[in-house]
Amino acid sequence: MIERWFEDYVPGTTEVAGPVLVEEAEVVDFARRFDPQPFHVDAEAAAAGPFGGLIASGWHTCALMMRLLAKEYLSPLSSLGSPGIDELRWLRPVRPGDELTLRTTVEDARVSRSKPDRGIVTTLVVLADQSGEEVLRLRAMNLIRTRPDGAG
Amino acid sequence: MIERWFEDYVPGTTEVAGPVLVEEAEVVDFARRFDPQPFHVDAEAAAAGPFGGLIASGWHTCALMMRLLAKEYLSPLSSLGSPGIDELRWLRPVRPGDELTLRTTVEDARVSRSKPDRGIVTTLVVLADQSGEEVLRLRAMNLIRTRPDGAG
Repeated sequence: MIERWFEDYVPGTTEVAGPVLVEEAEVVDFARRFDPQPFHVDAEAAAAGPFGGLIASGWHTCALMMRLLAKEYLSPLSSLGSPGIDELRWLRPVRPGDELTLRTTVEDARVSRSKPDRGIVTTLVVLADQSGEEVLRLRAMNLIRTRPDGAG
Repeated sequence: MIERWFEDYVPGTTEVAGPVLVEEAEVVDFARRFDPQPFHVDAEAAAAGPFGGLIASGWHTCALMMRLLAKEYLSPLSSLGSPGIDELRWLRPVRPGDELTLRTTVEDARVSRSKPDRGIVTTLVVLADQSGEEVLRLRAMNLIRTRPDGAG
């Protein structure tokens, strides 16, 4: 578990995490539950479809991004959730077998005026595949607790 | 299966779909896989945490939104995927037992200049709970095929 507080998110800092493997069974399982479009759930239909094969639901790609973010960027000690995301772009199809790497860059960090025990951190998040091609890009806002007196 | 083409997404049109029930087992299962923060996976820790109980991962809420969108708004005949989302906001915590209703409003629809067999549809998407409180709001872009000659 990462110990990290608001003060540890320093604007300009870039970190890399991952990779995470995109598994075909998980692509199909996720899509059956949440996004059963033919190019996400049916390999045969997908082969004849607009992407020439099975691709992950964009929301599955976001969920894999979140897996890396929760594990290596956010801390359960300080993470207070997110008010939202801006400029989310699915830049290229994500396919089974792809390995996705996360890159985070802290863009802004400001303490809350009304609740000074927390701040809002804005992060540019990019997910790239094994060829270095960007597949997902977004700007995340996260509420993060400031370091309590006496904490590491 | 809905039969719907680009021409059927008329700016100004509002539709309602759902509801979908938020199930606790699914909240925990989704979060264990993708977003294992204490307030998403551990009812006891969540009760003592910032939300006073278990809440759904924001990405799970998006996935439930997508379930309704894929079933009742997009057509497998014409949906060609999405380039992205703008201004995604998680407005209130989503809790097990909530029932979420989708409201879509077509904001814009324009045929592609380079590929006139498709267009881009911009939709304001809102998910509200059983009290009518908005829990999620976003602006989605979707690539949609134009109606082929002879199709319904």
